[in-house]
Amino acid sequence: MNGRERAVAGKAEARTAHAARPWEKNIRRVTPYVPGEQPQGGRLIKLNTNENPYPPSPAVREVLKAMEPDMLRKYPDPSASALVNALAGYYGLNPEQVFVGVGSDDVLGMAFLTFFNSDRPVLFPDVTYSFYPVWAELFGIPYETCPLNADFTIDPLDYDRANGGVIFPNPNAPTGCFLPLRQVEEILRHNQDVVVIVDEAYIDFGGESAVSLLGRYENLLVVQTFSKSRAMAGMRIGYALGSPGLIKAMQDVKYSYNSYTMSLPSILAGEAAVKDEAYFRESVEKIIRTRENAKRRLAELGFTFPDSKANFLFIRHRTVGAKELYDALRSKQIYVRYFSGPRVSDYLRVTIGTDGEMEELLRFLEEYLDAPAKRGSRQK
Amino acid sequence: MNGRERAVAGKAEARTAHAARPWEKNIRRVTPYVPGEQPQGGRLIKLNTNENPYPPSPAVREVLKAMEPDMLRKYPDPSASALVNALAGYYGLNPEQVFVGVGSDDVLGMAFLTFFNSDRPVLFPDVTYSFYPVWAELFGIPYETCPLNADFTIDPLDYDRANGGVIFPNPNAPTGCFLPLRQVEEILRHNQDVVVIVDEAYIDFGGESAVSLLGRYENLLVVQTFSKSRAMAGMRIGYALGSPGLIKAMQDVKYSYNSYTMSLPSILAGEAAVKDEAYFRESVEKIIRTRENAKRRLAELGFTFPDSKANFLFIRHRTVGAKELYDALRSKQIYVRYFSGPRVSDYLRVTIGTDGEMEELLRFLEEYLDAPAKRGSRQK
Repeated sequence: MNGRERAVAGKAEARTAHAARPWEKNIRRVTPYVPGEQPQGGRLIKLNTNENPYPPSPAVREVLKAMEPDMLRKYPDPSASALVNALAGYYGLNPEQVFVGVGSDDVLGMAFLTFFNSDRPVLFPDVTYSFYPVWAELFGIPYETCPLNADFTIDPLDYDRANGGVIFPNPNAPTGCFLPLRQVEEILRHNQDVVVIVDEAYIDFGGESAVSLLGRYENLLVVQTFSKSRAMAGMRIGYALGSPGLIKAMQDVKYSYNSYTMSLPSILAGEAAVKDEAYFRESVEKIIRTRENAKRRLAELGFTFPDSKANFLFIRHRTVGAKELYDALRSKQIYVRYFSGPRVSDYLRVTIGTDGEMEELLRFLEEYLDAPAKRGSRQK
Repeated sequence: MNGRERAVAGKAEARTAHAARPWEKNIRRVTPYVPGEQPQGGRLIKLNTNENPYPPSPAVREVLKAMEPDMLRKYPDPSASALVNALAGYYGLNPEQVFVGVGSDDVLGMAFLTFFNSDRPVLFPDVTYSFYPVWAELFGIPYETCPLNADFTIDPLDYDRANGGVIFPNPNAPTGCFLPLRQVEEILRHNQDVVVIVDEAYIDFGGESAVSLLGRYENLLVVQTFSKSRAMAGMRIGYALGSPGLIKAMQDVKYSYNSYTMSLPSILAGEAAVKDEAYFRESVEKIIRTRENAKRRLAELGFTFPDSKANFLFIRHRTVGAKELYDALRSKQIYVRYFSGPRVSDYLRVTIGTDGEMEELLRFLEEYLDAPAKRGSRQK
């Protein structure tokens, strides 16, 4: 039990009146990841969980409409071959280089469990996906964070030291910063004795994937998801691409936990989505155009932000605090993400929505920032 | 690394020419569970993985047909409330007493991770679901098995000793034996300082659920699945029922691994299936009638078996070996399950199919057992 777990167990005891029950002594106590809120209701603008504003490929609808319930009574193919083959074809890889799971969190969690078994610390950035330390603590994996540069970029030299593995998102979250491929390769060159995971949840929005490095680095695992660029967060599909050795090791762990992770609808709808490349390209390009337009408008309003290559912007206003803006937006049913941690509490993470949604956001910000006096009175 | 893992790592090294690669040293090596084969093709009789021969409720079809792809672009409700509430209503429990996951393997795996953190061994029967030792080894949990009685029944007294937790299926697999509820309670009475898991994957086929004991035992976790009685193996839905304290601990671990495990189709189709109780009862009763008929016929053919309360029979012939029968059936595209381990290698596990499927199986067995001479010549 590390310090954090102990603190949490302590809190749990304080919370419940029955903490002394004997069967409670061996329960694993953890601090879970807190997902972004999922507000319900029609008239709201949801720019807080990096979902795609456009629906998935129409081919997905056809697959679901054609599903006969009788197909559901059997276990699905445990290797999810239809989906694995579609992904292998799309990336020009071998099916033995593709692992699929229940969203990229499942894939990443399984990768932590499979590959990070060293006594040396796993390294990742200090400002990054907040699930990394949660998995490390769940599985008792030592870790250390490497501070990002002042402009939120990753310094590859920080990862040039003894470690038990490396993981970072590219583009990084919640900053949106993209690490150029030659720097990704620099990290790989310095870390040939451990597994290096590049978490590419947002790669399709303008970054360049490390998939092209797979042929040269057998210790590289690239993780991607259907939840963002493919607009299928509700279907729960993520995947890892890597050398057959890495993928086999993950399969073995998966088959030691749950043989049948992928439901039949996920396998078939995922396959259909991958095959509709034209639709995919088109909706991703729409989001990129909207993002670049939002960058111009936000800069005019006095916001600064890293040059995001993801489907979100990490913005800070030169005079108005992030928490204040978050609350003001929320009161208008516009949901963005606010993180209270060190280095990030001045920022809001804003998902790129449709042009219409972004227009509503920008108009509200325009008005709000234009009326500080009114704002003051509203706030008391 | 225990002996078994070491042996496997050794095998892996022998297998691959590149085992000396430095990044391979920290990979978790495990012996995965081997699921029953999933043969493909039209003209085959699949009685090997305990699937339901009847389709799920027609309400499931309606849900899938009505799904708009636009609903898939958002993350699903991480608490899967619609499904949780339907299950709570069905069992007369509080929603805080229900945990859902990606099939009961996901739920059981998470329960192992959450509750079995003692240095003392977890106890389960020697002949039982073969995934239990796999999870224990994956998570480094010590365990000991308690030999079943000669008739394959569980002796509750075997579980009356210091341990780190208890788990057993009821009815047990692959035997089909049901442990009467007063004996389940005897195990609970002797194990109030650990979590006791009753794995009720097959309970709907004639057993009596330990759900009725939940009010008296806060350390009891009952696990069930949609894969058997509800005919939805392809949808991946399992669940656990227990005291709010146990469920909260599992939720915390789940939210430390993957917040969004249940896809939207699984949540909605699962909810619809639970609400169609009439259809469920009817199809379960059909299977029970077919099973009881199969028992009579198999006994006439010289088979013995425990008195199964599950949707399968665990049969042994008085003269012909199980492996021989398995191979003969397989050559006729009739798939049943054969386990090669100690105590069980004389038996076949035969899933209860439709009346028509069972008739084909029984007719083949009749003919085969009637013609030992012919059989001998076929075998050489």
